[in-house]
Amino acid sequence: MNYPNGIKKNFKINTSNRGMKLESDINDTNLYYRNNNIAVIYKKPTPITINKVDYIARDNAVIKEAHFITPSTTDYNGVYKGCYIDFEAKETRKNSFPLNNIHIHQIEHLKKIRNCGGIGFIIVRFILDNETYLLSINKLENFLNNETRKSIPKEYFIKYGYLIKQGYNPYLDYLKIVDILRSEINEKTN
Amino acid sequence: MNYPNGIKKNFKINTSNRGMKLESDINDTNLYYRNNNIAVIYKKPTPITINKVDYIARDNAVIKEAHFITPSTTDYNGVYKGCYIDFEAKETRKNSFPLNNIHIHQIEHLKKIRNCGGIGFIIVRFILDNETYLLSINKLENFLNNETRKSIPKEYFIKYGYLIKQGYNPYLDYLKIVDILRSEINEKTN
Repeated sequence: MNYPNGIKKNFKINTSNRGMKLESDINDTNLYYRNNNIAVIYKKPTPITINKVDYIARDNAVIKEAHFITPSTTDYNGVYKGCYIDFEAKETRKNSFPLNNIHIHQIEHLKKIRNCGGIGFIIVRFILDNETYLLSINKLENFLNNETRKSIPKEYFIKYGYLIKQGYNPYLDYLKIVDILRSEINEKTN
Repeated sequence: MNYPNGIKKNFKINTSNRGMKLESDINDTNLYYRNNNIAVIYKKPTPITINKVDYIARDNAVIKEAHFITPSTTDYNGVYKGCYIDFEAKETRKNSFPLNNIHIHQIEHLKKIRNCGGIGFIIVRFILDNETYLLSINKLENFLNNETRKSIPKEYFIKYGYLIKQGYNPYLDYLKIVDILRSEINEKTN
């Protein structure tokens, strides 16, 4: 398989997403979904290996040394209308989405999800325009198979992805787009 | 709702599951499922809050202080035949399963999963007999609603759960039982 050179093959500590607004928007939206019994979707904990733990008391342990490890999966997963949902969310300050923002094994993971009947996608926010797009793993795979560019231009998201409208509550109703993806999949299988 | 007093309401550091055999059996089984494109199911990382990180170099960060936090969900989730799968796995050395081994919010989580169309359950291994059972959230909820005991007797698992047969590869083929749960759900909805 051909992957653009831009895709990260080795793990690097990525501090660019710490405290990003998109993450808190998605967490708020997921909380709304859970509270209203619409879906149960969570952000996974950061994967680490723990090397040293101090047991101060029976119920009080402090991790004294740990390391970040390469995430083998994506950040978010859960259930909506019985369907398995799985995605990664990223922000960019550019007019295109640099592919080194996403790990090659995360893309492989999303393909496996799709092959097992789940719904996999990425959510990308273009900060300068404050626009957030959902791009399915199929369309992401199409780009990777047919392009050699190291970043996906915003035009590709406009043409093959879906703009997630920002509202009040929930702030980022991405499950509306998931409904569209679900109906597309059902049309193909029927 | 009535919960037996035995259910843990506050978080305590539980060291009893560290390095447990059941966990490695399930991880091996999940690896087999992934490698054979049967299902994509992972154990989630341990939830922690990070207080202090040393950046030794650009790509080398060491967590110097972190704390375990109460898990709000279960340990395992993923996708099988398009279905969302979610469960918690525990070992016990007793002839019954002490309910303080499972958090109240994990039970609430499994109920929410069920209500959103997912398949939620617990896997319990009785170490003394080396028998492993799968009990659906519905049967677990029935016990909690009708009993005041602080532990679920093994007989309840025999009667209302399913023995997971141990084989060679995969070692613990729990998805065979999930197939039964899926067909029960389909029978009810059809």
